[in-house]
Amino acid sequence: MKKSEGIHMEWIDGGVTAATGFYASGVYAGIKKSRKDMAMVYSVVPATAAGAFTTNVVKAAPVRWDINLLKDNEKAQAVVLNSGVANACTGLDGEKNNECMATAAADALDISEKMVLTASTGVIGKQLPMDAITSGVKMLAEGLSDTIEAGTMAAESIMTTDTVKKEVAVTISLDGTQVTVGGMSKGSGMIHPNMATMLAVITTDAAISKELLNEAVHEVVHKTFNRISVDRDTSTNDSYIVLANGLAGNEMITKKDQAYDAFVAALYAVSESLAKKMAADGEGATKLLEVTVTHAASEEEAEILAKSVITSNLVKTAVFGNDANWGRILCALGYSGASFDPDKVDIVITSSYGTLCLVKDGMAADYSEEEATKILSADAVTVTADMKSGMEFATAWGCDLTYDYVKINADYRS
Amino acid sequence: MKKSEGIHMEWIDGGVTAATGFYASGVYAGIKKSRKDMAMVYSVVPATAAGAFTTNVVKAAPVRWDINLLKDNEKAQAVVLNSGVANACTGLDGEKNNECMATAAADALDISEKMVLTASTGVIGKQLPMDAITSGVKMLAEGLSDTIEAGTMAAESIMTTDTVKKEVAVTISLDGTQVTVGGMSKGSGMIHPNMATMLAVITTDAAISKELLNEAVHEVVHKTFNRISVDRDTSTNDSYIVLANGLAGNEMITKKDQAYDAFVAALYAVSESLAKKMAADGEGATKLLEVTVTHAASEEEAEILAKSVITSNLVKTAVFGNDANWGRILCALGYSGASFDPDKVDIVITSSYGTLCLVKDGMAADYSEEEATKILSADAVTVTADMKSGMEFATAWGCDLTYDYVKINADYRS
Repeated sequence: MKKSEGIHMEWIDGGVTAATGFYASGVYAGIKKSRKDMAMVYSVVPATAAGAFTTNVVKAAPVRWDINLLKDNEKAQAVVLNSGVANACTGLDGEKNNECMATAAADALDISEKMVLTASTGVIGKQLPMDAITSGVKMLAEGLSDTIEAGTMAAESIMTTDTVKKEVAVTISLDGTQVTVGGMSKGSGMIHPNMATMLAVITTDAAISKELLNEAVHEVVHKTFNRISVDRDTSTNDSYIVLANGLAGNEMITKKDQAYDAFVAALYAVSESLAKKMAADGEGATKLLEVTVTHAASEEEAEILAKSVITSNLVKTAVFGNDANWGRILCALGYSGASFDPDKVDIVITSSYGTLCLVKDGMAADYSEEEATKILSADAVTVTADMKSGMEFATAWGCDLTYDYVKINADYRS
Repeated sequence: MKKSEGIHMEWIDGGVTAATGFYASGVYAGIKKSRKDMAMVYSVVPATAAGAFTTNVVKAAPVRWDINLLKDNEKAQAVVLNSGVANACTGLDGEKNNECMATAAADALDISEKMVLTASTGVIGKQLPMDAITSGVKMLAEGLSDTIEAGTMAAESIMTTDTVKKEVAVTISLDGTQVTVGGMSKGSGMIHPNMATMLAVITTDAAISKELLNEAVHEVVHKTFNRISVDRDTSTNDSYIVLANGLAGNEMITKKDQAYDAFVAALYAVSESLAKKMAADGEGATKLLEVTVTHAASEEEAEILAKSVITSNLVKTAVFGNDANWGRILCALGYSGASFDPDKVDIVITSSYGTLCLVKDGMAADYSEEEATKILSADAVTVTADMKSGMEFATAWGCDLTYDYVKINADYRS
């Protein structure tokens, strides 16, 4: 499933600047009150580009821009991003402002605006403050650097309610050539399967055809970013963008061979890591909740079942309270829409504090509540549901539901 | 839609004992720590019976009992209910215990156990304490009374995390004969469209055929109990039971004539009222959130859109914070799965403090945030979304998401 078996992969420091030929910057442009609010990612040569975007009917202006650009063009060279204002539900003015942002970046970088992807995140319904945006874009272009620190600055600049920056990078060897895949993302609330208030930019120096990059994106996003949920709210701005500039010098990947599999494994590793970081940093979350459904009749059913558990408010509050309330887990499996025999299900919880079977064949196992509470009190908890009805499995990631989630969201705009 | 136009309906005091020939009781049997925990509803003659039950794959023992009973029998004469333990995920022992509860009630009432419906609510995975149950059943049978107070005692005895009892009754005139429909319900958490941790018993002295009673139940539940949500969790125990004993003396309703419409209107009124009471009493809720979608392309789409808004955690927290964060409302419409033109949508909020248009044609209207906050601070708030794409509409009910929801559910079992 994770395709990483047999492929030598190494985790390295850095994010969007880890791969050869990628520059980044992050600045405070004055959109938000004080924190950094604009970022840029730039490839020294045009890069093969692909993306996946929100399924929400209401799509922000930058999302519509990117979808059009990637439909008509094989390559892109820069991504300009802002936080604070989402540029969603902003009508024609919003569209014009987005285009101005792209054009300003193109001018500053001396490239065509058709080579500039855009991404925004923040409050819906407000127009971008264009003075701040245009001066911000200039600062970004001037500040571009290929250091690890520059990548980190970019990752920090796209945060909204995130509490930690999210960046990661790996290297793999493709026929003796070292290829790097790195990325950054943001996202903390309005996060749900089928994307999130989530921006992710992945950079790689791999050489790969547009067609296969598209396929890789589809395959990987489906199993990573589309399997996390903080609050079931799929945003207007979700964007997952990959730039592949080919500067590693590997033989261009044009068919589904071993090199393709290795590249997908690296893209998967980076994307899963970013996705898990986002789930763990869910608004108000105190812990990462991983739910794996095994022995399901089909992968689709496994996915439906796993997502149903990670999105249950009752499961999420119980996990917050370190309460092994397995009835809620079984209940969430039951209303998922997947069909199964409830009298066969086993449920096991696992964390760094141990492993415990809570449910055996659909009924309470003989376990210690004290031990269960201890296991649930870890920073990351895995729930495994064994359906005993097939060969397939799926994992989904979420977090607990806490007082702080309510606090953050009852007064987000002020 | 509500079918109540042109039908004279009167709200009266009482609940399950309002209709002629119905008795009820409620007692403390020792299942819960201190609050009343068992209830009984009894008709002096066998009553035509129908029901709607949870769609959860995991069905509690009483739910399976009732479904079988109603499939094989036209009539029932009593319902015995308990709170504290849900008798779900309890295997064969749970099934036997449920049958014992029914048999004990049948013995105490001197009727066949095939005439006794059962319902349980509470913690999943625990066995019923049968000593308490059997002595409770005896107390219930001895305590039966047709007073309003007896109905209230029953309504109080099925509460779990509910903060208020829920009962209501109406009378209508069918061809000059006064017919009464009354009911009680419980439900506060694990409440989601397609039923809830919800028990409802409706009693009526109307004479109506089994076939039409079934149809009426289906029609009414779809538009009432299936359109409320507190937390998207559909429970294992949801039961909506109607007993129609015919003692009003109206001509038996056997076809879809005016009398049928009037009966459905009364059943709708009672069910909508109970459903709204449940949404308003959602765990930790400070206010009722009503969402009406108008001018949708179809009723199905209107329903999907309305449910998407009432179930959005981000909308619910914003409503708790009296924050007119309309972007989240538009966003929830957008990811509902229904298709529409976002540039046409108007959004209006209404409460006892006034009415205000927040969104006009998909963009921010010119409104005062102060006024919006004032309107949202009422006990009941209505959001109306005008899709301008058709003739259909639907209403759904929910509540805000608060600190107390988290508090209640992070430690429900203790």
